Amino acid sequence: MKASVECYPCLLAQILKTSELCGLEGADKKEVMNFALKTMADLPADIYPHEIVVAVNEHIKTTYCSSHDVFDPFSDLKNQTRAIAETFYLSIEQKIEQAPDSLEMAVKCAALGNIIDFGAKSHGNLDVQHELEKIDTLDFAIYDYQPFIESLEKARLILYLGDNVGEDIFDKVCITEIKKKYPEKKIIFAVRDQPVINDVTLADARAIGMDQLVETISSGSIYPGTILSKTTESFQELFKTSDLIISKGQGNFETLCSEEHPHLFFFLRAKCEKVANYLKVDLKSMILMKSATDRMGYS
Amino acid sequence: MKASVECYPCLLAQILKTSELCGLEGADKKEVMNFALKTMADLPADIYPHEIVVAVNEHIKTTYCSSHDVFDPFSDLKNQTRAIAETFYLSIEQKIEQAPDSLEMAVKCAALGNIIDFGAKSHGNLDVQHELEKIDTLDFAIYDYQPFIESLEKARLILYLGDNVGEDIFDKVCITEIKKKYPEKKIIFAVRDQPVINDVTLADARAIGMDQLVETISSGSIYPGTILSKTTESFQELFKTSDLIISKGQGNFETLCSEEHPHLFFFLRAKCEKVANYLKVDLKSMILMKSATDRMGYS
Repeated sequence: MKASVECYPCLLAQILKTSELCGLEGADKKEVMNFALKTMADLPADIYPHEIVVAVNEHIKTTYCSSHDVFDPFSDLKNQTRAIAETFYLSIEQKIEQAPDSLEMAVKCAALGNIIDFGAKSHGNLDVQHELEKIDTLDFAIYDYQPFIESLEKARLILYLGDNVGEDIFDKVCITEIKKKYPEKKIIFAVRDQPVINDVTLADARAIGMDQLVETISSGSIYPGTILSKTTESFQELFKTSDLIISKGQGNFETLCSEEHPHLFFFLRAKCEKVANYLKVDLKSMILMKSATDRMGYS
Repeated sequence: MKASVECYPCLLAQILKTSELCGLEGADKKEVMNFALKTMADLPADIYPHEIVVAVNEHIKTTYCSSHDVFDPFSDLKNQTRAIAETFYLSIEQKIEQAPDSLEMAVKCAALGNIIDFGAKSHGNLDVQHELEKIDTLDFAIYDYQPFIESLEKARLILYLGDNVGEDIFDKVCITEIKKKYPEKKIIFAVRDQPVINDVTLADARAIGMDQLVETISSGSIYPGTILSKTTESFQELFKTSDLIISKGQGNFETLCSEEHPHLFFFLRAKCEKVANYLKVDLKSMILMKSATDRMGYS
């Protein structure tokens, strides 16, 4: 699912936010926006929007930041989000324990965690508490839970693709539940190679102890998604050989929805009209969907 | 209040919508977006965002539309909005009749009408019914009603600057109430000279019978706001000589907030962060404010 002009307003809003978090003002901010405007105009429409984000970040980094610092303008926001998300840990655990089907509830919670995303413009608010309260009646516009469970039961090696900081707390609870039910299965949690927007990196995953729970690796992706051809060879091999892949969030969905894999599942909230239209669902719909390629003829 | 880079994402979203309403797709839509991106990059940051809208509209019009047609891509949407707004007419009248202070309620309703605006990206939904129900307890972040009433009582000539289609229904009810209370006052309702986004034109004002109620004129503005230097000479004279000016909405606010006039009042909802920050209020706040220049040192 490549970029299209529909992505430009959100991309610009995100770039604006990044430049502000980098402390840029006045002429510098205008210069960064101009760079972004020209990059969008010069590039063909059919690249991943994630590539524009990285190109502009690289420009900000080389032009305005010290070469010694890690470029992570969303660092403070990520820490704040993690702290908020952590306050929900116990109540999510409780929800799962008390549910008639604890695994299904854990999966629902993991999907719900995707609402935590201040990177997606149209979905900046953390209305987690509100959503969590009504999770029992939460409607999924696409809900391939049965095929998911069938794949999960057969799987030996599970690749779990992380998305945003804060959301990873929900992933941790879900993974804990899967491990409890299926202790023999191997689960690998994969994250971005470098900080990009609010996406989970190895450092972020460690901050919530994910590496203590399951093997945690970098996919090699420097994009806020998983452009498979731009991940490490070992990750590409892992992607191919995993028996089940759980892909979290819109960034991973946009970059992986055309990839072929017999047991690839997407957990996300459709946060923008482009993705909602593509999936033929309402904006903000919850999705638990088996790989699009063999299912609905998407490309 | 000139444009700044903060306006770019919303501007792009609006241009995208315009190009879609014009039926543009694929390469044509990309070409229009590229034109917009380059226009934004090439222009200095300190022009009115409204000028970018008009420049891109002009490009779409000359490149893709028949020269014989009126360029009014929002025409259908305006008609739909008008039809929805008209369904509220009776209940607004009733609210006003039943209120302890009918004039104050009429003024509040006129301000509330500004929530109808599918042109402002962050405020596309028509939650009129909901807002109307709680109008009695509606909080204004800035509420210069007393100075407004004092100016109104003394005024002989009142200039009322229209904003969006749909909102104009609320203006009509308010103007009716002012006329009922002060039949001797002359009221002039001024609108845009040409269709631009969803702003009221002479044809739109006639469609709701505004011209039967009060004198209705074009300000000469081709922008979705009132850049005074780009209105007709007669309008500029009228602006100067009016005893009271009621300026509706954000477009008029952004372009007039630095103008000097002793009895200029802004009725609006702060629909974007830039305006909310400028006014030091929360996003979506309701505003009934006396001219900023002599009041809060804005420029």
